[in-house]
Amino acid sequence: MESQLHLYNTLSGTKELFKPVNPPMVGLYVCGPTVYSNAHLGNCRTFLSFDLISRYLRYLDFKVRYVRNITDVGHITTEVDDGIDRIGEQAKLEKLEPMEIVQKYTVDFHEVMSKLNLLPPDIEPTATGHMIEQIEMIKSIVDKGFAYESNGNVYFDVSAYKEKHNYGELSGRNVDELMENTRALDGQSEKKFFADFALWKKASPEHIMRWPSPWSDGVPGWHLECSAMSTKYLGEEFDIHGGGMDLKFPHHESEVAQNTACSGHGPSKYWLHTNMLTFEGSKMSKSLGNSILPNELFTGDHPMLKRGFHPMVVRFFMLQAHYRSTLDFSHDALEAAEKGYQRLMAGVKVMESMPVSESNEVDVSALAASFKEAMDDDFNSPVLIGHLFDASRQINSVIEGRLKIDASSKSELFKLVQGYVFDVLGLMSIEDTGDSALVDGLMELVLDLRARARANKDWATSDAIRDQLNELKIVVKDGKDGVKWDLGA
Amino acid sequence: MESQLHLYNTLSGTKELFKPVNPPMVGLYVCGPTVYSNAHLGNCRTFLSFDLISRYLRYLDFKVRYVRNITDVGHITTEVDDGIDRIGEQAKLEKLEPMEIVQKYTVDFHEVMSKLNLLPPDIEPTATGHMIEQIEMIKSIVDKGFAYESNGNVYFDVSAYKEKHNYGELSGRNVDELMENTRALDGQSEKKFFADFALWKKASPEHIMRWPSPWSDGVPGWHLECSAMSTKYLGEEFDIHGGGMDLKFPHHESEVAQNTACSGHGPSKYWLHTNMLTFEGSKMSKSLGNSILPNELFTGDHPMLKRGFHPMVVRFFMLQAHYRSTLDFSHDALEAAEKGYQRLMAGVKVMESMPVSESNEVDVSALAASFKEAMDDDFNSPVLIGHLFDASRQINSVIEGRLKIDASSKSELFKLVQGYVFDVLGLMSIEDTGDSALVDGLMELVLDLRARARANKDWATSDAIRDQLNELKIVVKDGKDGVKWDLGA
Repeated sequence: MESQLHLYNTLSGTKELFKPVNPPMVGLYVCGPTVYSNAHLGNCRTFLSFDLISRYLRYLDFKVRYVRNITDVGHITTEVDDGIDRIGEQAKLEKLEPMEIVQKYTVDFHEVMSKLNLLPPDIEPTATGHMIEQIEMIKSIVDKGFAYESNGNVYFDVSAYKEKHNYGELSGRNVDELMENTRALDGQSEKKFFADFALWKKASPEHIMRWPSPWSDGVPGWHLECSAMSTKYLGEEFDIHGGGMDLKFPHHESEVAQNTACSGHGPSKYWLHTNMLTFEGSKMSKSLGNSILPNELFTGDHPMLKRGFHPMVVRFFMLQAHYRSTLDFSHDALEAAEKGYQRLMAGVKVMESMPVSESNEVDVSALAASFKEAMDDDFNSPVLIGHLFDASRQINSVIEGRLKIDASSKSELFKLVQGYVFDVLGLMSIEDTGDSALVDGLMELVLDLRARARANKDWATSDAIRDQLNELKIVVKDGKDGVKWDLGA
Repeated sequence: MESQLHLYNTLSGTKELFKPVNPPMVGLYVCGPTVYSNAHLGNCRTFLSFDLISRYLRYLDFKVRYVRNITDVGHITTEVDDGIDRIGEQAKLEKLEPMEIVQKYTVDFHEVMSKLNLLPPDIEPTATGHMIEQIEMIKSIVDKGFAYESNGNVYFDVSAYKEKHNYGELSGRNVDELMENTRALDGQSEKKFFADFALWKKASPEHIMRWPSPWSDGVPGWHLECSAMSTKYLGEEFDIHGGGMDLKFPHHESEVAQNTACSGHGPSKYWLHTNMLTFEGSKMSKSLGNSILPNELFTGDHPMLKRGFHPMVVRFFMLQAHYRSTLDFSHDALEAAEKGYQRLMAGVKVMESMPVSESNEVDVSALAASFKEAMDDDFNSPVLIGHLFDASRQINSVIEGRLKIDASSKSELFKLVQGYVFDVLGLMSIEDTGDSALVDGLMELVLDLRARARANKDWATSDAIRDQLNELKIVVKDGKDGVKWDLGA
């Protein structure tokens, strides 16, 4: 397969032609959520971006193995390895067993992902599910001379690593410069160097989550799990490693170091990072009161929203920005996205009813090329959506008789647009997401009553029907094949 | 709390008063699915039964910790421990990595459970997530003299166990009698006794799933995981252990033996077992062609069904039988259940509109007592449903003016019926399961048009509306508070 796909590789800082290690296989690893609180919109955007990426790779006929982990132990609260586990902390707060916290927020995460129509990853490994693999990896790093034990803890030896390799090659951080900005903290003294990070943390006596190891009863460090799990399921060198840009340092940098310590090279050829979300120009944060949970966005149950937005509208909104750009949320931007989404889906829906001619004026190949070019350019979904609107305009021109399409072009266009809208962008029409038989039945009745009113020249009734349908955002079109209706316009 | 709850304990073969080990805490462990194929209806019934059980325990204000595992490794294909792992076999068949099989069928399982409105368990541990715990438990059983190693495998020593304990106390099986019906099989020779079962199986060289252990690189035996995980999350003695009756032997019997070997007693005070499903009187099986997947039941996409049934109808249908009775599926029985479900939900919905009187003739306490008595009698949901229909009849009598209710009784009845229908039985009204805003909006329009037609004495139109709404199973009721509508009748 001659791929023209280019992607922006954080490692090189440039767009590169995508050359898989073992085509047509593609290994994709994305750092998943730490399940100690409800999924937030930043998570949604990151995972939605990689959903788009994995969908497009599959659309190009790559055989993708998409691994996205669940961090259910070992995520330390601060960068300085103070040993406080986020899940353990939340368990104390909610008076639950840590694994109850894990279950509660894993269920929430999966529900939100499903509402946004993300395909589940092919493997969804957990940190607690890979204790043996993590312990084996620590042993290997210690054996190679890149880690040391101290009071039952094991630290990665950044100084030793720096002598042979480049710690900072992914993030561009220079640890020697970082040192100047670092405060001395309790518990740091058992480290040889301030930037050394924990591979294994001894558990304090009251800590519930703990496993036996050669060093102490304890828990693995957060960075380690991704190295162990990506190696297990995708091998020592796979294609794409992704995550939010906030994970570049120290998480991903440390992963590179751990893998390099074991195998002599980093885990993946390409590193992809998604950008941040803002709300009306500011960073979302709980203290600013502009932090919105996905379900609040869907229901509108938040002071900064006038109403809720359907998950498909939120999905479309997020896809309207490139994954490497910041994305700014606001009520008005969501309303605009809703109109765009409805317009696009209306175009998809009316495709079927395009009348067929003997001659053809729709250049489907050109459209196909423009779609592919957009996505081949580092998965540029906003450009793709622009081209889909071009296609939609042409579809409407055909329906209104201003443009001709022949049967074979119609069938090609149908397949092309549906492929990009449903399979690549992962959009669904809103009716498909609910129980539509009742709505169809009621609309049949309403259109029947509309016809009766018109036949009786009862304009008051027919106007009332029109107004109420407008309010429900239902569009009725009278054509030569009878009356059709659709949601949105 | 003075509980009157009685449950049938397989261990004693009698109904016993439920006395929790540490009230108000209740530990409940249920053997979950082996995720190597789509969830089948038998699974659904078992897990739905324990959903009912855990819901009722919570309704009684017990603090329930419900643990239901996912078997993602170690489920051997036959009772004779031939070492063939079901997940590994399916992975070969589908040309996937075993953990891709696990993910695919875990996702399917969760989707089906969610459609049937089962609450997720509080902890959902996996066998692969508890390798260290399982290895530690094997070590303990070996140390106590109840297991031995042979060629890298570890077997539970049933003969040694029988000398001190009763192997068969749960299932009533007598292993010496069983022996006469057992064929000699390859690989059995390394066991001391035919009934010895594997705690650890050495992996063959081509086997992908494998973990290091003191005995070999291999996998834990299926029975072991539940002993290790129930002990970890619920302690050495908890309250209720449940599962399908097909698991009584050898799975649960072996669990009792493993736990007793370690701690001197079995894992739980009460053992609950659910009964089987049949289809038109026969056992469901793929070879008979009467095996129906849950999603086929929901869509009607199966030769033995004329149409699909909503998951809530299926839930209601299953709850109409007691969990210890066999349950026979048929198209006609489902249709009857659908009518019953609609009738019950109609009663719940019209409760609000009961007119309030000064005097009262509805004995809410008697209803409450009858509901509780039914559920306290080993979770007898069919009897409860019968009493709910009594309540529904009284509600209708109040609405039709044949019975009086005062304000405080109305509010008590409301809380009582909603509690049992929504919280205990876990039923939802079908509208709640879909996107109902559009349906509500359209019904508003239709009822407005109906009023116009009546005002104009346009009986043809008003009849057409009535007929079409009948077809959609929408019931319109004219009352003094205006016009109301509802689904079903």
